[in-house]
Amino acid sequence: MGLEMEEVAAALPMEAAAAREPGVEIYPLSLYYFGAKDAAVPPRAVETPADRALRLKANFAAHGLRTSVHGVLLVELFDHPHVLLLQVRNSSFVLPGGRLRPGEEDVQGLKRKLSSKLSVVGDSDDFTGDVDDWQVGECIGMWWRSEFGAVPCPYMPPSFRTPKECIKLFLIRLPMSRRFVVPRNMKLLAVPLSQIHGNAQVYGPIISGIPNLLSKFSFNVISD
Amino acid sequence: MGLEMEEVAAALPMEAAAAREPGVEIYPLSLYYFGAKDAAVPPRAVETPADRALRLKANFAAHGLRTSVHGVLLVELFDHPHVLLLQVRNSSFVLPGGRLRPGEEDVQGLKRKLSSKLSVVGDSDDFTGDVDDWQVGECIGMWWRSEFGAVPCPYMPPSFRTPKECIKLFLIRLPMSRRFVVPRNMKLLAVPLSQIHGNAQVYGPIISGIPNLLSKFSFNVISD
Repeated sequence: MGLEMEEVAAALPMEAAAAREPGVEIYPLSLYYFGAKDAAVPPRAVETPADRALRLKANFAAHGLRTSVHGVLLVELFDHPHVLLLQVRNSSFVLPGGRLRPGEEDVQGLKRKLSSKLSVVGDSDDFTGDVDDWQVGECIGMWWRSEFGAVPCPYMPPSFRTPKECIKLFLIRLPMSRRFVVPRNMKLLAVPLSQIHGNAQVYGPIISGIPNLLSKFSFNVISD
Repeated sequence: MGLEMEEVAAALPMEAAAAREPGVEIYPLSLYYFGAKDAAVPPRAVETPADRALRLKANFAAHGLRTSVHGVLLVELFDHPHVLLLQVRNSSFVLPGGRLRPGEEDVQGLKRKLSSKLSVVGDSDDFTGDVDDWQVGECIGMWWRSEFGAVPCPYMPPSFRTPKECIKLFLIRLPMSRRFVVPRNMKLLAVPLSQIHGNAQVYGPIISGIPNLLSKFSFNVISD
């Protein structure tokens, strides 16, 4: 059925298709290979919250607004889109991605971070060579923090003029097959949209809002 | 400050601006005029839930999937974007819009509904003449109901093959000034994003998710 829908979309004139919702192809989880590698960066297990606050404050003083970029990667399982989430030490879920270097461009920084978290090649965070061929699509959402540690908002509240952190989500278009090689201190899980939606308690406000952000896209779910 | 931002955006090359987030201009609430008119359609106050279920079932049997289209209209107040919501008889909040006629196209149907709810000209629901010059932008979200009365989902759950209703949200770009003329049984309110966000208890799952859907846009908030 997925392939049929794809053909219909292809038969539409380009402009009409663009005016509707952009189509996104999703391939079965079974077509991807999952492996492990040594962690690029030793986990910050020893950092206390107070230490972290100090570090972020010092970074803000030196470089200003902290910008994080994250990728939303989708696969198919049981005919339903699943989001790939990293689970750190059996607890919190995060999207693959991370903080930009000062002056680094969004898309380039996200490619670097995706390689560092999900590829064999990006086996060091200092990796500066050719990054993997990630197809980074549109920015689908943006969140702001007034203070480090504050609950993020999907808008800039009128009360704060100098936000401390901006978190951007980008849709990644995956090829039909690829290898994901994940640091050993993390697990890569495929979580169904139906489980994530509205479940801020488990996934936090940003991830739990992803199904809403994706709702305008028409998916071509390619089943096995 | 708003005007300055606009100039910066205009100075960027077209492609670079498009590759970032589409800019949306928002004008002060004070530039709009609000008036009242007699209701286009008498309110369905006398319809019982059972009657409503029967009516929707009969409609589904005759015409298939019910599609509703809604407009997200934004104004500025206190330097913060506000969404225009209709309040019916001091209780529930709804977005301006409504159900498409069988075979009616999304944008045309939404223009007809916006005129019927918000314009002098569309003073009858059967109004078929030239609709107001509404600038209907992109579809920003889409929700599905498996059954009439069921909680809507921002995705098509794998379990249901024949959804009963599809609800689409479109971003409307307002001119710098215009008249809103609203049926007497409704109120048009400007509600801040900060109040709507995550507040499903008051605004329902669809409206409370709008700030998230809008987060990728860069707003040029034009203050008085």
